[in-house]
Amino acid sequence: MSSELEKQFTLSQLAEIVDAEVVGDSNTLVTGISTLQTAKKGDLSFLANPAYEKFLKETNASVVILSQSSAESCPCAALVVKNPYLAYATLSHYFAHTLTESKGTHSTAVVHETAVVDASAVIAANAVIEKGAVIGANVVIGAGCFIGENAVVAEQTRLYANVSVYHGVSIGKRCIIHSGAVLGADGFGIAPGSDGWNKIAQIGGVVVGDDVEIGANTTIDRGALDNTVIECGAKLDNQIQIAHNVVVGENTAIAACSGIAGSTRIGKNCILGGGCGIAGHLDITDNVHLTGMTLVTKSIKKPGVYSSGTAVEPNAQWRRNVVRFRQLDELANRVKKLEKDTK
Amino acid sequence: MSSELEKQFTLSQLAEIVDAEVVGDSNTLVTGISTLQTAKKGDLSFLANPAYEKFLKETNASVVILSQSSAESCPCAALVVKNPYLAYATLSHYFAHTLTESKGTHSTAVVHETAVVDASAVIAANAVIEKGAVIGANVVIGAGCFIGENAVVAEQTRLYANVSVYHGVSIGKRCIIHSGAVLGADGFGIAPGSDGWNKIAQIGGVVVGDDVEIGANTTIDRGALDNTVIECGAKLDNQIQIAHNVVVGENTAIAACSGIAGSTRIGKNCILGGGCGIAGHLDITDNVHLTGMTLVTKSIKKPGVYSSGTAVEPNAQWRRNVVRFRQLDELANRVKKLEKDTK
Amino acid sequence: MSSELEKQFTLSQLAEIVDAEVVGDSNTLVTGISTLQTAKKGDLSFLANPAYEKFLKETNASVVILSQSSAESCPCAALVVKNPYLAYATLSHYFAHTLTESKGTHSTAVVHETAVVDASAVIAANAVIEKGAVIGANVVIGAGCFIGENAVVAEQTRLYANVSVYHGVSIGKRCIIHSGAVLGADGFGIAPGSDGWNKIAQIGGVVVGDDVEIGANTTIDRGALDNTVIECGAKLDNQIQIAHNVVVGENTAIAACSGIAGSTRIGKNCILGGGCGIAGHLDITDNVHLTGMTLVTKSIKKPGVYSSGTAVEPNAQWRRNVVRFRQLDELANRVKKLEKDTK
Repeated sequence: MSSELEKQFTLSQLAEIVDAEVVGDSNTLVTGISTLQTAKKGDLSFLANPAYEKFLKETNASVVILSQSSAESCPCAALVVKNPYLAYATLSHYFAHTLTESKGTHSTAVVHETAVVDASAVIAANAVIEKGAVIGANVVIGAGCFIGENAVVAEQTRLYANVSVYHGVSIGKRCIIHSGAVLGADGFGIAPGSDGWNKIAQIGGVVVGDDVEIGANTTIDRGALDNTVIECGAKLDNQIQIAHNVVVGENTAIAACSGIAGSTRIGKNCILGGGCGIAGHLDITDNVHLTGMTLVTKSIKKPGVYSSGTAVEPNAQWRRNVVRFRQLDELANRVKKLEKDTK
Repeated sequence: MSSELEKQFTLSQLAEIVDAEVVGDSNTLVTGISTLQTAKKGDLSFLANPAYEKFLKETNASVVILSQSSAESCPCAALVVKNPYLAYATLSHYFAHTLTESKGTHSTAVVHETAVVDASAVIAANAVIEKGAVIGANVVIGAGCFIGENAVVAEQTRLYANVSVYHGVSIGKRCIIHSGAVLGADGFGIAPGSDGWNKIAQIGGVVVGDDVEIGANTTIDRGALDNTVIECGAKLDNQIQIAHNVVVGENTAIAACSGIAGSTRIGKNCILGGGCGIAGHLDITDNVHLTGMTLVTKSIKKPGVYSSGTAVEPNAQWRRNVVRFRQLDELANRVKKLEKDTK
Repeated sequence: MSSELEKQFTLSQLAEIVDAEVVGDSNTLVTGISTLQTAKKGDLSFLANPAYEKFLKETNASVVILSQSSAESCPCAALVVKNPYLAYATLSHYFAHTLTESKGTHSTAVVHETAVVDASAVIAANAVIEKGAVIGANVVIGAGCFIGENAVVAEQTRLYANVSVYHGVSIGKRCIIHSGAVLGADGFGIAPGSDGWNKIAQIGGVVVGDDVEIGANTTIDRGALDNTVIECGAKLDNQIQIAHNVVVGENTAIAACSGIAGSTRIGKNCILGGGCGIAGHLDITDNVHLTGMTLVTKSIKKPGVYSSGTAVEPNAQWRRNVVRFRQLDELANRVKKLEKDTK
């Protein structure tokens, strides 16, 4: 990814942004950003993970963001900060590609006459905005997006191409919604009857708070009666499934491919690894951390790190252990008997 | 979600629809539907799960659907039925938001001249209907949908926005297909050769029966030679993957994020929890129930409830147990030896 | 799936294509392709898996592709080859439905004036091609696709309907990308700060090599600084998640619903079963095979077959074993004590 327009900053400009101590020539010019291993002259890099310290002394970067403890080993200029990862996060945006946005509503977009679209919003080609929808200031609706009846997209939120937002869904400010995400499809509500399944109308909505990011092809179903809620600052990766009436708490981050079943409440500041599954109607308290592919079938009331599953091993060995797992209860009983017999 | 047009029914009208016994004033007006906890005056609510009985006596609902056994504790009017959940399912549709459908084919839709579109069908903005496709009576094709060559969508079926239907796929009557679903993409058929993988043309189709619901971003691949089949009344949640030549039996319900590998046949009236995986070329008989995240690698010949995996536990404890799992076969052998030695 | 135009080949024509020995009348006409069980007169079939040998003697096929060892049992003409599955793969394409492609750019497609579209490329209805994008010779961009700024799609690659390609993504030659796939969405890069998560700009790209197939609704995130890379000949099934800076090696095949976390490198010629999860920052060497739903949390340095998880069992039995799993470390310690006591 090279952007056409060269970005250019002096070391002192960057230092000011992240309140860093400058080591080296404060006029050093920075024109790009890279990892320590791939950096070239003119690049800014960073050292946040001790595992990468070994790459520091041979980097070709012109400036490295790092903490005091690594400053001495740095072969080039440095920005010394308390939290290098956070400083990198902040400065990364100064080197990002800026998309060339057209202004206003593209001639091929289809906007219902009753929709309210702020004059500063961008509605890209072939997007469809239905009756009564409200599009706030500086919102960008990507190409091919669908915004259903009475849906609301608040200011400064960006939807990338081909996002589907059903009727009545409400999205907060400064959100980022990636391609293929679907907000507000019907929850999986079916009641068994004598002649098969009977659909339950999904009458609730989806309410997404401010500063939420929703990854590509993630799906968030509308509620059955009440709303499904994604609270402010929550971050959802790709291909996540949020069922009807789930609540995802403030600043909770969920990695890709996780699924949360209906009516479960996840607290604030939780972190879910990839591929986790949480059963329905549970309560997960604040500050819970699940490692990857953990299955949760009971509520979790104490903060902490939780896991399930077994770890990878060679298949031949695994096959034997799996057979033993199915005999585990019996094995435990045999051990109990042995203990009794040897007493 | 509030709809613009107020719905309004008397208790006796609702009772007639679900053949309920009325307790209380049969002229009670009902204008909305809510959970017991959030209901307000004018709302209909329901009690189907004993866990929610505690909310009954303090509900502000005007009418509650419930069974005879709970009727006495009800603080308001009631609809007494044998199956409250089913009655709720039926009545929920009377309170659902009705989308404002435009009529006919939107001017921006692209419909091939050889496609046959019933005069009562709705083709929304920017939908694309290819050569020879057939769209039945009262079908709704959402904005941005793609209907491939010779595909068939039978009467009263609704596709929400941005659904992709490949060539030759056949969808039955009264189906609901949610946004982002993909029907008829190539199955994962590859044959190893001396220079890498060789693609196998996927020549079969996808046949979806009547009354099937398919969730957002669910994918159903076309068959390699024969068809992939979803039988009538099956209900598929979001983000499910159905591989080529799978057969999903009548009225089987599959929760989100499950994946079924190629050529597996799932019987009728099965229920799969979320995140299940079934290997290829297996036979799952009727009335099998898999709990969430179960992995199936052998055919299941007896109806019943099946599971795999381990349950969530604190990470520190889990780490120790996971190590022991890898030694399980050895542990079992040691117990066997102990038993011999202590005889 | 029946195509309008009948395909027709003689046995000798087919034999020449796959360099097969003909058994029977070399003028036998072949007009279709089917499994042994469903074949009718005029059909070509194949026998590659011994489990299907039982269907050979009663097949109604006119010609069967098989190996020397099965030739004698064949009731009809045969194409004898060393690798029947590979010969079937090759010949399958002669019987595939040929889509009726319009030529050139559809009038409803929106192509930026600076985009470079080869004259032989097809840009279908309502596709959007952004500024500076490059579309090579004989490329097909399906209906409703989005091709972002400066993205490159090389010759003979086909994108089915509704694919989203973000800015700067590069796709090689002869690739196939299925509907709903998203290439180049932001990686899940967030840094914790005092007031919640801080987004890290995702500045890297996605580079897809030649001859890659990407399944429906699969997502491949752009890199944080360097690129995410899918090497030549890799085959990705549906609903796969590839996180930022992952490298998928040449000819590696990944089955549906698998997820690979950030910065992990997968070697060449690996095979991942469905629903696998690989944690971030790991190295998986060449020729590793993971069985379905395996979780990998450590690098794998030796080729071979690996697994994790437990196998399906009746729920009542599983519940007991799961409880024992949580006591496994303790059980192992008790066995150790017993061994000591009985010495």
